[in-house]
Formats: sequence, C-alpha cells, structure tokens
Amino acid sequence: MKKYVYAFGGGTADGDGKMKDVLGGKGAGLAEMSRAGVPVPPGFTISTEVCNIYFQNDSRVPAEIQKEIDQQLAKLESKMGRKLGDPAKPLLLSVRSGAKFSMPGMMNTILNLGLNDETTEGLVKETGNPRFAYDCYRRFIQMFGEVALGVPMEKFDEVFDARKHKAKIKFDTDLTAEDLKAIIADYKKVVQKETKKPFPQDAREQLSMSRDAVFRSWWIPKAAYYRKMEKIPDDIGTAANVQTMVFGNLGETSCTGVGFTRDPGSGERVFYGEFLVNAQGEDVVSGIRTPSPISELKKWNEAVYNQLVEITSSLEKYYKDMQDFEFTVQDGTLYMLQTRNGKRTGPAAVRVAVDMVDEGLIDEKTSVLRVAPNQLDQLLHPVFDAASLRQLTKLATGIDASPGAAVGRLAFSSEDAVQMSASGPVILIRKETTPDDIHGMDAAKGILTAVGGKSSHAAVVARGMGVPCIVGCGAVAINERSKSATVKVDDKTLTIKAGDWVSLDGTTGAVYLGQAQTKDPDPNSPVFARFMKMADKYRGKFGVRANADIPRDAKAARAFGAEGIGLCRTEHMFFAEDRLPLVQAMILSDNEKDRRKALNKLLPMQRKDFQGLFEAMDGFPVVIRTLDPPLHEFVPKREELMVDIAKLPAADIKTKREMVARYKNFGAEVKNLKTVLPDLLKRVEQLHEFNPMLGHRGCRLGITYPEITEMQARAIFEAAVAATKKRKVVIPEVMIPLIGGVEELANQKAIVKKIADEVIAKSGINLKYMIGTMIEIPRAALTADRVATEADFFSFGTNDLTQTTMGLSRDDYTKFSKEYQDKKIFKADPFASIDQEGVGQLIKMAVEKGRATRPDLEIGISGEHGGDPSSVEFCYRVGMDYVSCSPYRVPIARLAAAQAALTGGDKSEAMRTA
Amino acid sequence: MKKYVYAFGGGTADGDGKMKDVLGGKGAGLAEMSRAGVPVPPGFTISTEVCNIYFQNDSRVPAEIQKEIDQQLAKLESKMGRKLGDPAKPLLLSVRSGAKFSMPGMMNTILNLGLNDETTEGLVKETGNPRFAYDCYRRFIQMFGEVALGVPMEKFDEVFDARKHKAKIKFDTDLTAEDLKAIIADYKKVVQKETKKPFPQDAREQLSMSRDAVFRSWWIPKAAYYRKMEKIPDDIGTAANVQTMVFGNLGETSCTGVGFTRDPGSGERVFYGEFLVNAQGEDVVSGIRTPSPISELKKWNEAVYNQLVEITSSLEKYYKDMQDFEFTVQDGTLYMLQTRNGKRTGPAAVRVAVDMVDEGLIDEKTSVLRVAPNQLDQLLHPVFDAASLRQLTKLATGIDASPGAAVGRLAFSSEDAVQMSASGPVILIRKETTPDDIHGMDAAKGILTAVGGKSSHAAVVARGMGVPCIVGCGAVAINERSKSATVKVDDKTLTIKAGDWVSLDGTTGAVYLGQAQTKDPDPNSPVFARFMKMADKYRGKFGVRANADIPRDAKAARAFGAEGIGLCRTEHMFFAEDRLPLVQAMILSDNEKDRRKALNKLLPMQRKDFQGLFEAMDGFPVVIRTLDPPLHEFVPKREELMVDIAKLPAADIKTKREMVARYKNFGAEVKNLKTVLPDLLKRVEQLHEFNPMLGHRGCRLGITYPEITEMQARAIFEAAVAATKKRKVVIPEVMIPLIGGVEELANQKAIVKKIADEVIAKSGINLKYMIGTMIEIPRAALTADRVATEADFFSFGTNDLTQTTMGLSRDDYTKFSKEYQDKKIFKADPFASIDQEGVGQLIKMAVEKGRATRPDLEIGISGEHGGDPSSVEFCYRVGMDYVSCSPYRVPIARLAAAQAALTGGDKSEAMRTA
Repeated sequence: MKKYVYAFGGGTADGDGKMKDVLGGKGAGLAEMSRAGVPVPPGFTISTEVCNIYFQNDSRVPAEIQKEIDQQLAKLESKMGRKLGDPAKPLLLSVRSGAKFSMPGMMNTILNLGLNDETTEGLVKETGNPRFAYDCYRRFIQMFGEVALGVPMEKFDEVFDARKHKAKIKFDTDLTAEDLKAIIADYKKVVQKETKKPFPQDAREQLSMSRDAVFRSWWIPKAAYYRKMEKIPDDIGTAANVQTMVFGNLGETSCTGVGFTRDPGSGERVFYGEFLVNAQGEDVVSGIRTPSPISELKKWNEAVYNQLVEITSSLEKYYKDMQDFEFTVQDGTLYMLQTRNGKRTGPAAVRVAVDMVDEGLIDEKTSVLRVAPNQLDQLLHPVFDAASLRQLTKLATGIDASPGAAVGRLAFSSEDAVQMSASGPVILIRKETTPDDIHGMDAAKGILTAVGGKSSHAAVVARGMGVPCIVGCGAVAINERSKSATVKVDDKTLTIKAGDWVSLDGTTGAVYLGQAQTKDPDPNSPVFARFMKMADKYRGKFGVRANADIPRDAKAARAFGAEGIGLCRTEHMFFAEDRLPLVQAMILSDNEKDRRKALNKLLPMQRKDFQGLFEAMDGFPVVIRTLDPPLHEFVPKREELMVDIAKLPAADIKTKREMVARYKNFGAEVKNLKTVLPDLLKRVEQLHEFNPMLGHRGCRLGITYPEITEMQARAIFEAAVAATKKRKVVIPEVMIPLIGGVEELANQKAIVKKIADEVIAKSGINLKYMIGTMIEIPRAALTADRVATEADFFSFGTNDLTQTTMGLSRDDYTKFSKEYQDKKIFKADPFASIDQEGVGQLIKMAVEKGRATRPDLEIGISGEHGGDPSSVEFCYRVGMDYVSCSPYRVPIARLAAAQAALTGGDKSEAMRTA
Repeated sequence: MKKYVYAFGGGTADGDGKMKDVLGGKGAGLAEMSRAGVPVPPGFTISTEVCNIYFQNDSRVPAEIQKEIDQQLAKLESKMGRKLGDPAKPLLLSVRSGAKFSMPGMMNTILNLGLNDETTEGLVKETGNPRFAYDCYRRFIQMFGEVALGVPMEKFDEVFDARKHKAKIKFDTDLTAEDLKAIIADYKKVVQKETKKPFPQDAREQLSMSRDAVFRSWWIPKAAYYRKMEKIPDDIGTAANVQTMVFGNLGETSCTGVGFTRDPGSGERVFYGEFLVNAQGEDVVSGIRTPSPISELKKWNEAVYNQLVEITSSLEKYYKDMQDFEFTVQDGTLYMLQTRNGKRTGPAAVRVAVDMVDEGLIDEKTSVLRVAPNQLDQLLHPVFDAASLRQLTKLATGIDASPGAAVGRLAFSSEDAVQMSASGPVILIRKETTPDDIHGMDAAKGILTAVGGKSSHAAVVARGMGVPCIVGCGAVAINERSKSATVKVDDKTLTIKAGDWVSLDGTTGAVYLGQAQTKDPDPNSPVFARFMKMADKYRGKFGVRANADIPRDAKAARAFGAEGIGLCRTEHMFFAEDRLPLVQAMILSDNEKDRRKALNKLLPMQRKDFQGLFEAMDGFPVVIRTLDPPLHEFVPKREELMVDIAKLPAADIKTKREMVARYKNFGAEVKNLKTVLPDLLKRVEQLHEFNPMLGHRGCRLGITYPEITEMQARAIFEAAVAATKKRKVVIPEVMIPLIGGVEELANQKAIVKKIADEVIAKSGINLKYMIGTMIEIPRAALTADRVATEADFFSFGTNDLTQTTMGLSRDDYTKFSKEYQDKKIFKADPFASIDQEGVGQLIKMAVEKGRATRPDLEIGISGEHGGDPSSVEFCYRVGMDYVSCSPYRVPIARLAAAQAALTGGDKSEAMRTA
C-alpha cells in the first residue's frame, strides 16, 4: 500500500532528507534532523501527494488516508504519553505547510492545536501557569479562526485592543490570565457571529480542518504569485507537517528564535539571528516586540547557546550549506523546529560559496553551482539603501528592464537630458525611445519609459550601456509637450515635472519620488574574482561573448571577461551626430551614384569604429553585422512631418524656426519649408511600412542596395588590416542579418568576399576571416542545412526569432502580456527567457541541420536571451559554441555557462535553493 | 559508350517520342514521327545533355561528342546522297533548338546552313533557280550573322531596305537574283565590319557555330524569363536538331505553313492554320506577308491538302491530343517539319478535353488532366476583345491581383465610387484600400491600387468579390486630394482624372486609357459543366470549400460548386455602415460594462448574418472565425487625426464641417472639435501598434476581451438554432485565429463551448458543432501535437504563416520583391504559391503532429493559396482534407484537386503541355 503519512522525531524517522518531492522541504528537513539525533519535537508529515489528492477529490481527504493519519496520530500520542483532546494530559500540535521549494511566509500555519475549553483547563492544572494556558488558547482561536474559519483578523484585533485599552496596558505580556479569559470569551463570540457556528471543541476536527486549511493556502494569491515569480510549478502541492507543540512562552526560562549559520547579507561566518524570551515563533516574525540579537542568548542561557551553536554547526556541516533555522527553548530545553538552506543576497552567496571551499566543506564544482547566476546582478550594479528608500513615495512599478539603482532629475527629452546632465545626474523619461534618443540615453543615469517591454529599444540599449532602466510603466501618463507627467498614487493624482528628483530601481521596476541613497558594488573584489575564476575553470570551451557596438563598450566587455564580440550592430554608429546627415543623404538618394557618394564619406568613419573594436578585442573574434534596421528609422517620423506640414500655413516665425531646426539636415530654411517638407514627406512615405519588423530591412537592404554592403565590407577589412599592422590579432566574422534562405546569404557573401579578398590581397597581410549569418527567421532555421552550405557560422538572433515564431511584436505585446501571464498562457516572458517549447524547437532543428551539412559550423546566440541563465543552459544543451550578451551580463552568462557545463545543461532543479 | 547524337528520318529513328528528357520535345517528336512513317526531312538530334556539358565545359563541345556528330553527319550525307559544303550536291541543313518543355519562339534557329559562295553557285546549277539560291544564301548570312556572330539585325535591315529602295520595289519577292547577289555582297561586308572576320565559308565550321549558338540561346533573357514564368527549370538545357533543309520557297509549286488539328481558340474540331506559297517558315511567323487560310491549300494542291489532313489526323490520334504542326511543300512534295501538342485557350482546352472523350481518343482521367487549372480563369471572368484593346493607350502594368476585364470611369474615393456607380460602371483607384473602402469596392467594376501585392487588402477582397483588380501599380502616381493621377507613357506624362474611362485587365495586370470591348464568359455552358462533373468524379473525398463572409458570396460559392465555407471572416461584417459606430463604441469603451452594451447591440446583426450563411450552405459545413484584425483598423487613422488636430486652430468653417463629418461617430460637432479630437487621439494612440500584424489581434483580442468571443459565439449558435428550426442542416465550425499554443485555444474554446452548450440546451435541438483553430503562426505548427489535444480541426492560414515563417510583411514586401525575383532569391511569389521548402515544412510538420495526437483531426487550408493549383496539389500531398478559396477560384481548385487525386499530388510534369 502506498504510504502517505511519515513519522519523525525521537532519533528516528520514516522518511529522509532526500524526499523533498514527497515530504516538502520542511518535512524532509525534520526527518533528516531526527535521523541525525537533533532534538526535534516529534510529529508526522502528511505528504504533498495528499495535497494534490485533496484538490482533485473535491477538497476532501479520502478515508484510507484519513485512517493512516489516525494511525500516525495514535503512535505519536503513545510516543508522547499524551492524547489529543485529553483534558488530563493534552497533546498540543502545530500544523505547518512545506512545499518542495521554499516559499517563506507565503502559506499558512496553525499553532497550539488541541486546545478547547476543557484541555485549556487541563493545561492550567498541568503547568500551574494559567496565564500561559489562556494565552495559548486565545492565540489558537485567533489563528485557527482566521486561517481555517476565514474570520477576518481585524475582528479579533478589535477585541484584543479593546481589552488592552480597558486594562490600560501597553504590552501584550502585561495582560493577566483574567484578561485573557475575557478575550477568549469574546473571541468565541466573534467566531459564532462570523461563522454562525460555535468554535469547534473537538480536537480531531480541529486537526482535520487545520490540515485542509494548510492545503488550501497553496492557492492563496500571494503564494500563487510567489510561485510565478520564482518559477515554481503550480502542481507540486504542499505537505502538512503535524508536530508536537513546544512552548517558548512558558515563562522566563522559555524563548523562541530564528537564525542563520552565517550572515545572509554579507556571507560572513558569524552566528546570526535573534530571539524573544517568553514568546512563540510568530512573535519574532511579526515585529510586535523587538527581538534580541542571538549573541545575547549566551548571557541568557549559556548551555542552551552552546548546544544551539553546536547543533547548527553540525547541521551546516551535514547539509554543506548555510542553514536558516528556527528553535524554541521550553523551560530550559532546546528544540530545533526547522532547518533549511538559507536564502542570501548575491554578495553573501558568492562569499559563502568561496569560504566553504576554503573550509573544505564543499568542492569547487559545488561552489560554482551554489550561486544563482542572476544573483551576481547585485554585485554588478549599484543598489539602494533600503532605509533611505522607505522614506520616499513609491510612484509606480514598471517592467525591470535593466538592473541597478539610479537617482536623478527628470528630463523629458534627449536634448534636455544632455543639457541637464552638465549640472547633475539625470533620469530620462520618455513615452518610448527611438534610435534618435541615443545621446540622451547616454547622458542619463537612468531611463524610464511608459511603453515597451524587455526587448524594446530602451531596454536593449540600456542593458548594453549598463544603465538602470524601467520600461512599460503605463501608470505614468507622460505629456512630452508640457514636460510633465501624472501618476495616481493612492487615489491622488501627482504631477511630476522636468527637474524633479526621482529614484529608479531597475532591478525591481519601482519608481520613487525623491532622492534615495545608493550603495556601489565592488565587482573587482578578490572574493568575486576568485569565484569567477573557478566558474571559468569549469565552463570549459563554452564561450561567452558580449554584444558591443563601440570601442568603449568593447572595453567594458573585456573587463567583464567577454571572450570576443558576438554582435556589433553597425547601425548604432549611424546615429552619431556627425554621421546621421550622411546616412540620411544616402537614404534619400534616388540613384546609386548619389548613394555611393554619401557612402564614401561614411567609409572612413566606420573604418575607424571597427578598428577600435578590433584593437579592444585583440586576439578575440569580433562579429560585425551588416546594416539591419529599416531605413525609415533614420529619417523624420512620417506623422510628425505630416503634422508640421498641416501646421505650416498658420505657423508663426518661431514655429517655423523650430521646424527649420528639425529638418536642417534636409535643407530646410524658413523660406523654403513649403517645398522642402512635402518633398521630404514624399520620400518618407515611400519608406513607410505597415510592419517594419517584417519589411525592407536586414539583408534585404544589402540585396537592393549592394553598395551599402560593399562599403561596410570595405570598412571592416580595411580596419582589420590597419589593426593587424598595429600588431593586434584580428579575427573578423562578418554576419548577414535576417536571411530566410541560402540564396540571400549567397548574394551578400559574394559581395563581402569580393571586397575582403581584394582588400587583403592589396595589404599583403595574411588575414583569416569568416562570413556567417543570423538565424532569426523561422524559414532560415527550417532550411538551415542549405544555409550552412554558405555559412561559416550561425548566430541565433532570438529576439527576432521569438517575434516571428510566436507572431509577437516585442514593441506591442505589452498590451496583453500581463493578461497572458495572469491567465497562464505565457509561463515566462518569452523575450526574457527563450520559449524552449516553440522557439527552442527551431533552434535545435537549425543546430542539427546546420551541423549535418557543416560539422565544424560555429554556432552562438546574440539575442537578448544570451544573458538569461535558463536560456544559457538551453544554448549549452543544444550544442552551441558560445553565448553573447550585453557587457554587464557577461559574468552572469559566464556563471550560467559554467553551471550548464557542470550539469550537462540540466540543472533547473539543482539550482533552486530549496 | 554513352550516346549523345540521335538520327531520325526515312521511316526510322534512334530515339523515340518518350525521350523528351534527352531529345527535347521537338527532337522526340521528329523521332516519333519518323518511326510512324510521317514524311520528315532526315537529320539528327544533339541531345540536351550536350547543351549542359557545353556550359560546364567552358562553352566547348568535347572532342568525343564532336566525333559522334561527325559520324552522324556522314550517315546523313550518305542517306541524302549529298554532302555538306559540296558545291556539286550541297547538303543544306537547319539547326533548331528544342527543350523538354515547349518554349515557342524563345530560342534561336538557323536555316539554310551549308551555303557559301561555292555551294550557292552549286545550288543555282542544281535548281536552275538563281533567285531561289541567292535568296537562301542572303537569308542564311542574315540569320547566322545575327544568331551565331552577334551582328545586330538592323545592320542587315539597312542594307536590305536600301536595296529595296534603290530597286523601287515593295515586296521582298520582287527582288531579282541580281538584287540578291548585291545584297549578299553587302551583307558579307557588314559581317566583316562587325566581326573583323570574313563570313565563314567552311560549312562544318558553320554547323559547329550554329549548334553552339542554339545552345547559347538557352540563356538569352527572353528565354530565361519565359522559363521563370512557366516554372521550367534552368538546368535541363536544350537539344540542337540538325535537319535537312526542305524549301517552301522553290517557286510557285512550293509552300510552307503551320496549323492545328483543332481551333486553338474555341477547341472546335476544324482543320485550322495558314500557309504561304513560295516562302520559308519564318515568313509565315514574321507577318511580313499575310498568309492564306489553310482551307485554300485544297485549291492550291488538293493531293497535298488531303495528305496533310490525313497525316495530321493520324498524328492527333497517335499523340491523343490536339497537334500544332509545321509543314513545307517542296516542289509538290509534302514534308512535316514539326508536330507538338498545341497550346490553346482555356475554353478550347475544356472543349478539346470533353470532345476527345466523346471521340474515344482519351479516357476521362486523361481528359481531367488535360486542362491546366488556371486556364479555367478564362471561363469564369469577362475578357477583352483583343482588337478593341489594340486601339487603346496602355498606361501601365501592375500586379495581376484578381482576374478579368473591367471597364469604367475612374473614382478616387469609395464615396465617389458609390455615387458615380449609379450612372455607370466605375473603376476605383486608390493608393491602397483599407476595410473602410468595402462599400466603394463593392460599387466598383474594377479596382486599381498603387501599392500592395497579391495578398494586400485590395487583392484579397477583390478576389473574394470576383472583381478584376490590379495592385502595386507604382507607375501611377495618385493624388487623392486632387482626384487625379499622373503616369509616364513613352516619356510623356499623362494626367488621368476622376471620370476618365479606363480598361483594366486583371488577368495580365495591364491598365489602358479608354473603353475596350469585353466578352462575357459562359461558366454555365454544358461543356464546362460536363468537364467539371468529370473532375469532381475523380476528385474523390478531397474537398473544396470557399472563403465567404456574407450570404451573397456564400450563394455564389455554392453556384461554383463549393462544398461548404472554409473561412468566414466575421470582421468584414463589422465594417457595414450600420455596425461600424457600434464596433467603434465597443472599442472606445474603457470598461467591460460599456463594451458589453455595444456588443449586445451587435449581437442580433451578427446572428442574422450567420443565419444567412447557414441557410445558404444547407448541409455543408461553415467555418466561422472569431474576430481577427487589430482594433485600430476600426477607428480613424492616427496620422490623419494628428493632421486634423494640427489644422484645427487655423481651420475655416468648411474644413471644420468636413472634420465633423469625418468624426461624427465619435460625437464631433463644430463647437467641440477641440476637445473631441484630442480625446479620440488619446484612445487611438493607445491602440496604435508598431507592427500590427504581430500585435494585439486574433485570439489575443478574445483573451483580453472575453465578452467579444462570448457575443460572437452566442450569435453563431443562436443563428445555427434558428436555421435548424427552418429545417436547414447546419454544421457550424468555430475557428479561433492566431494561436501560438494550446493554452490560447483552450482559453477561447472554453468560452465558446460554454455559450454553445447553453444555447443548444435552451433550444432543445440536437446540434453538433466543432471548435478548431487556425494554424498561422510557426509556434502553433511546431506545437501542433499539443494544440490538437484541444482542436477538432486545423485550418492553415497560409497568408499569415508565410508572413511569419519568412519574416515578410505582405503589405511591404513589394518594395523589394521584384529585385528578389530578378536575383532568383524567390522562385515564385510566396504569397501566390506556397513556399514548399520553408512554409511547407511547417505545414507538413503540423499535419503529422496534429494527426499523431488526434487521428481524426479535420485539416484544411483557408489562406489565399487555397486557390493556387500547385498549392492545392501540395495540400493534397501532405494529407489535408480540403482546400478553401475565394468563390471565383472554386472551379480551379476543384480541378487542381481532381488532378492531385489522380496523380497522387505529383503531377507537376504531367501537367505541362510540352
């Protein structure tokens, strides 16, 4: 027969520490501690399977399982020499939730179960402490009333506060036994009134109801939300741990506390925690009384302190990880209530992982697996001082697009941002950003947009720059014209204006009004460096490159350990102030000759950029992508131009001068606006597209205007030659974007190869290079076997591949993405973490087909997913050679890659600190 | 040893009629005719393989093949008792191209080969006809000079015309032997001047050069273009047929002619053709002299006429198809030069196919395979009278988006079109059409747009309506404001204005200025009906449905033989004048209550529409798709609104009244424009998307606004109940669009099912229905196994699937599609014919995965490809149950489906009339 209920305590247990699936984390810990001889109050665990059965069985526990529970209860009663509901020697129990993965504070707990009018009197007699007994009973009524019976907490609070007020006392501990008896009487009235039934006196009924309440708490909103955040599956359920009560509130010789074997904030090896004398566990957590630091436990009871230190040290040695424990001292006797691997900050995680290697507790491999890659973010970006943040008004929460803390004055345009940045830090706030905003984004300490998702322009560029950024913050209604914004906070509409101070937390997405204090990270600390060195050791040949467009970013990338550039977007160079007019002239040419003229002027500029990249990446490969974005991104917006033309007849001289400034690159003067603007509009109309993402861009540009590809190829190879002559080792990889089939690649490759061979031959230098392609359109993946006949390498452009495979515009999907996550249609944001079920199939297919044709094909990823740990694992698993991500995520990718290499890419479970 | 050269003639041949791969169509025909005893001038065929070897071998024929040619030539010389280059008895030859598939007039031919200064004199002596001999020689120099030596034709023409002018004669036949001698002398000077070499006198050299010139003509542009049009592979090459010359220009007892065994225009069984006395074949084709009808041949030489009738009749019986033949009578002796299956019009193809069954020549299966499905187009739409068209000025050529001929006056807006249509036929001319234009398109006899491709809005809707339509006609520059357009014709810029007459040929894409005569088709002719009945007989269970949105189209679909509706786009109903304000109110609501209010008003209207569809389709299934397009399609255009707001401050009362008319649905009045327009813009901005194709549309609407799906489901099932009560057999299939995975389908299915079951239960009627989904996003295809767990049917939306799989916007790709076709990146328009290599892989995968989960899954296609014959074959081959297309293509799809069923979907070769 299948076993559903597992006993523990008294030096023995039915289960063990490995049975987290069945017993949950807490239950497994209790079993393991029992087996290790740790003083644990005995009890039994009702398995997680029962929780699932409960939900499938119309919220009822089947009779045969009830029978097993009854049997375990009987055994427990006999072990303890007490009986549930026995007024003479009442057994008191706690019922606690406990899922496979830790969900601290998210689900319900019931304590002091077994008390009723009779057993409370028995407890009075047994302990000779009426105040304690009545306090337990009133606590039980309150907790059970709220959790199992659904009575609103405030109903009890009203009674309790009224009594305290009446008794004119300040602290709960000052309430007398009589006060508590009166409270109990009133509590029972509350229950009667709210539930239309008396408070249940049958202790067994109390137990069943408590167990069911714990199961039901699996689905309370905060628990469900936490699971979504932590990517914990909904279908694993929680166990219910039924355990003998021990009392930290039996008087001055009793206490209760929580602690960590090391400092969870810094990772320092100090005994860390707090405790409260004459209290139950909830008092420590609730913050009603201020607990004492655990060091004072030594003064209070040195023997207990020493025993606790000894037990927890051996627990840490046993679990080989920092422990988060709960304990209770009942009348001088120590009981351990719980131990688990402790949650910790990023810096602490790294420090503990490194220290434990030094202490011989864990080996290097375990150490590398101990830190969740995303935790490194806290070591790479400034963070807010929590105390200073609490004093600010939180305005809104958007999408956390680029991590880190930023404080500055609001600027509503890129021009303003540049200007204001001279006199202090600036936060750029825009409805959305476009490539036009690059200079403003560059000047800003943080970026806030009202629309867009994690792959929007603002998000991608900000991450590349390492600038904190929040996007899709729809609650902030921006009026760019009046340079102000409104936001509703607690039913009041606040207006924020240009120059106002705000604080952005790019890690959480929260926006605050005012100036918070920030703490800078130390990414160059020796501990961090040692940890990353270990990670790299186990990462093996799986490479990590960075996406970088300019030499400055390339240098940052190298500093973060990038082994080359996986994506240089050449168009980012096109938006620089000195180049944009040339690019625009090129675009507006209606013949090849004029286009070539403009391109010839761009050539030396691009060559210089590329040379800088090659020199920064000395010895490492540099993947340069030919021009990708639709050309209309470089010219004025169609609708703005239309509006200006509409305004022109009635425009005053000031307005006209503004227009001249706006269109100066196109020959606008006050006197010729009437002809220049309509002419410009005509060309802009020709460039206009209904779905630019699927339009005339990528290799389609190079195919219709081969002279662009020629110029870029010439710039790349002349730069490569120049850098080589400066004794740098140059490894150029030219990448053709947005191909749908081998024909497009072959067309562009022929152009690049011709120029490359010509430039190299002329230089007399021996220079190897590769020509490859992005795989970012489903058709390219589907026909990868043929594409590989022309490609030296593949680089997956997973942003576009996600857009096309899912038919989902990254700029527009935020309109419904929240609804999609709430309704569980999206399990995760597909632009943050690769959709392995759908997009992943195409990636896998392309890798297999590509290698079938060309076994030595170099394969990497250059989409935004390259910095997402679970996506990195996926890339490792499907056999890619490297990932490439924004410079500031390189350490995260290095660690994720190391973990993937250590676990063969299947470490999703191993990684959760359960 | 491999054989490369095949002799024929004199009642025997090395090859036979089946060897088209090797001998080409002409060569195989000559071999077959020789074997059948038809009087064919003897000769030999140099195989198509030699052509490929020639190109692979640096444009040289290898020595061993040359040797084989020489041996065959020797045999031919001995057979004819003449020798090439022998002045006494010169052998004269023709060299003709001949590929596997007929490419009439596309490649080169050389006649009279073997003539030089000496042999010409020999010929003079032999025939006693100097004029004939010199005429042959001058023709040979001219033809060889142009084709083999690359001398421009006009250089010869100048000489020839100068001589005619000098001799003061009108007809070539009036030139004397002396004139011709002088021409020959001048011709030789031309050759010397142009090629820097004398005209080659060595007859063997002439032969080799002619052969090579024929091979080279495989790649002349018109030939390459023809192959692209006809989808003939580039790598099959042409044979070179070397044949003894016979002369139709030996005097009044000689003639040459061409003919068909039946009328290629009507298919009528009459002896059809024309001939010229004392002429060579090229004279008949060139149109220099007007040939006589073949009936007059009887008068000229009855014996020859009877022999020709007898031979061609037996050839038709032998080949079991209408023959297109060439013949020459040399001095009273008949020679057959060529026979092949004759090209014919659509009506002729159908008539011949039916007649030949009656004549017992072919069986029904062959008959069904004899007509190319697209040929039926000519039987379904009006066509222009060719003569009347020749008198009009051709303005431009656009993309042939919907076939048929249309004549009418130009209307530049949909409002004008409706108004003008009261007083005569109208052609709607627009830059592009939008759903707003439905009423104008409905009123027009033809539609012309400047932008867009075959899948643009205009194209799709026009095909659905059966209205001729030309799109992407960029040469016409439209000014919608001034209601005029300009177009360059022969360097002159013509202006066309509202009210001008134009004639559109939707079948070819040509636009003419003026009124052409049209001929109406008779799709109900008994011959056509009989043919379609045969086709349906062999089509078996593979179904053909129609895409129809309104009862009128549904009735048309039934008349064309549709077996149900494969796609009803419910949104088309939303644009009707009485509904649009309700739809807009629904969209602009910012809360569910207001949305429901508007939806409740739409409900009875949708119900009525659906009931009409169900009644029209009595007994056949009706697939109804829930709302699909992005909501901003139903509200004013963002940029127009922005322009109007910009104009408002300086607007006069007239302009304001125009605005009020434009925004009357949104409560606009003259006095409130200042507040109404900005408010409206705010909401329109919220709906604005960067890539609407990948945005908030399809099932994403129904998921965020479940009340829309609820209303539509209610309308469908209440309509189904109402139609059932009217004793109609109703088979509703509700289709959820744009899903990316099973989760979205499950969400919408639950909503539809709940309403359906509720409505059906309430009605007390037993009504079966299905709920299925479009497969139009790659992810849906990739996860089709899971999708099928919730789907009763799949319908491939190949328009969107092509867009997403190829990353290609159908609205924008015309910007570069021409370049892509010219550079051979696209082999065919992927929106006209399924991209089998890429998109096809996903379709195949989805069919297999879907059926793996649910073997009885109903699978069809509802994209525009459902009416394309090669796509229909593909659908059959991958195992779909049906195709669905616009009503006017249903007969084409029925025939394509029948042919697919007869050939197992592999009939691409069988179908070419070679």
